[in-house]
Amino acid sequence: MFNEIVFIGLGLIGGSLARKIKQVSPKTTIKAKARSQETIQYALKEKIIDDSTNDLAKLVKDADLVVIATPINKTIDYVKEIYPLVKDSAIIIDVASTKVKIVAALKKFADKFIGGHPMFGAEIFGIKNSDPSMIEGAKFIITPDFQTPKEKLDLLKKFIEDIGMVGMELDPKQHDQEVAAVSHLPYFTAAALLCNVKDKTQKDLAATGFKSTTRVAASDPLWGKEIAEHNKEAIVEQLDNMVGELTVIKDFIEKQDLDSLRSYLENSRAIRMELYP
Amino acid sequence: MFNEIVFIGLGLIGGSLARKIKQVSPKTTIKAKARSQETIQYALKEKIIDDSTNDLAKLVKDADLVVIATPINKTIDYVKEIYPLVKDSAIIIDVASTKVKIVAALKKFADKFIGGHPMFGAEIFGIKNSDPSMIEGAKFIITPDFQTPKEKLDLLKKFIEDIGMVGMELDPKQHDQEVAAVSHLPYFTAAALLCNVKDKTQKDLAATGFKSTTRVAASDPLWGKEIAEHNKEAIVEQLDNMVGELTVIKDFIEKQDLDSLRSYLENSRAIRMELYP
Repeated sequence: MFNEIVFIGLGLIGGSLARKIKQVSPKTTIKAKARSQETIQYALKEKIIDDSTNDLAKLVKDADLVVIATPINKTIDYVKEIYPLVKDSAIIIDVASTKVKIVAALKKFADKFIGGHPMFGAEIFGIKNSDPSMIEGAKFIITPDFQTPKEKLDLLKKFIEDIGMVGMELDPKQHDQEVAAVSHLPYFTAAALLCNVKDKTQKDLAATGFKSTTRVAASDPLWGKEIAEHNKEAIVEQLDNMVGELTVIKDFIEKQDLDSLRSYLENSRAIRMELYP
Repeated sequence: MFNEIVFIGLGLIGGSLARKIKQVSPKTTIKAKARSQETIQYALKEKIIDDSTNDLAKLVKDADLVVIATPINKTIDYVKEIYPLVKDSAIIIDVASTKVKIVAALKKFADKFIGGHPMFGAEIFGIKNSDPSMIEGAKFIITPDFQTPKEKLDLLKKFIEDIGMVGMELDPKQHDQEVAAVSHLPYFTAAALLCNVKDKTQKDLAATGFKSTTRVAASDPLWGKEIAEHNKEAIVEQLDNMVGELTVIKDFIEKQDLDSLRSYLENSRAIRMELYP
C-alpha cells in the first residue's frame, strides 16, 4: 500500500475510497482538498483524512498516489496542474465515468497519469453518503497507455486489489462504449421512466418495482450532463438500440405474438439470472 | 377479520398474504388449493395454511373470503367455478395485475366478486419466496362495481387495513392505464435493457446500477405474456411514450443542448425524490 495518498475532490467516490484505504491500511497518510470547507471539516472529524491544505503544491508534493475525484469536467485541468507538482514516482489516477476524451487530452502526461473508473454507487452523493462497503468486489477499470511505466501499473493493480476491488484493463474507447450500454443507458432510461409519470394516481401506484427501476435517476444531474458531453456517440447509439428493443416488444404486443414475446422475456430473464444468480 | 379464508393458488402473492393473515389473526382458518402438491406440503408444514383439499366445493363452502391468486389467465374461470359454491355472504377477490378484461368478464358475478390487485413483489416467485414483510404499507387496489354490496366493500377494506396494506379504489380502466405506466412499462424496459447487453465485457461491467434497473425483469415471463394479452392498448401507448422520452433525451445529446438535458434530468430527479424521499 502507498505511504501517502491525496484526494482532489472528496464526494461519494473519493470519500468511500478514502474510508476503505483507512480500513485496510491505517498507517497510510491521506490528505485531501475539496470544494467546500464543510466536507474537509467532516472528513477530518471522522478521521477519513489526516490533513488538508488549499496549497496544491504543498498538498501533493509527497504523494505516492493522487486520486482526482472531482466532477468529470474538472479532471483534465487538475491532472495538468498537479503533474509538475508531484514526485516522478507518483501515480495520478482519475475516477471519471468516461475515458476517451480525458485520456486523449492527457496523453502527454502518461508517465504519471493512468485513467481510472471505480464502478460503484452513483445514485447518492456527498461525503456523508460515502461508504467503504460499496467498494467490496466492485470493478475498478483502468485504461493504461503504452507509455505507462510497468512498475506503476503493477503498483496500481496491487492497490486496487488491496482495497478489495477487481481491477480490469480496458482500451478507453471500448470502456466508453461498454459503459454506455450498462451504465449510461440505464441512467437515461430511468430518467425517461420518471418523466413519463404523468399524474398523481401513477405516483400513488408506483411500488417497489418502479422504485428499483428508477433508483439510478437520483444521481447528480451534473453527472448525466457530463457523460452526455464526454460520451455523446456511444450514448446516442445505445439510445437507438434501446428504441429498437422497445419497438420489437411493442410489435410483439400489437400483433399479439405472445409466444415470441414470451421467448424474448425468457431470454432477458436468463441474462438477468446469469448476471445476478 | 374473516373466520375462514381460502386461497386458490399459493405462490409468492398468495403465500405472502396467507403468512400475513396468520400473523395478524392466528385464529383465522386458512385453506388452499395449489397447482403442485409440493406447495401444499410446504404450506402445511410451515403452518401458512391449516388445511387443503382438491375438492373445490368442499374447500370453499365455509369461506368468508376466497382469494384467487393464480396466473392471470386462470382467474376468470376460477371465479365462475367458485361463485355457485360459496355462501351468499362470501367475497371473492383476485390478485391479477390487470383488471379491465377480468372485471368485464365477471360483471354478472359482482354481488360476490370484487377485482383486486395487491401491489407487491413480482420479481421472484413461488411460496418459498413469500414474505409477509413485503406487504407492509403496499397498495391494495380494488375495483368495486356499482353492484358490489356496500357491506362487502366495507369488510374488504377493513381486511386490507388489518393486513397492513393501503386500500385504494379505482375504475378498472384507470387501473390498467396507470399500472401500464408505473409497473408494466418498467418491466418491459428492464427486459429491453437486458436484451441490449451484447458481449461479455458489458456483462463484466454491469454494476449495482444495472442490477437495480433490471431487477423486475427477473419476474415470471408468463406474467409478462399475460399482462401483454390483458392490457395491450395501454402498454403499447406507454411503450410509445417511452420511445418519445428517449428521443427527447437523444435529441438533447445529439445537439449537445446540455442545459436542456440537465433540466430534464433535474426534473426526473425531482420526481424520484418526491416519490421516494
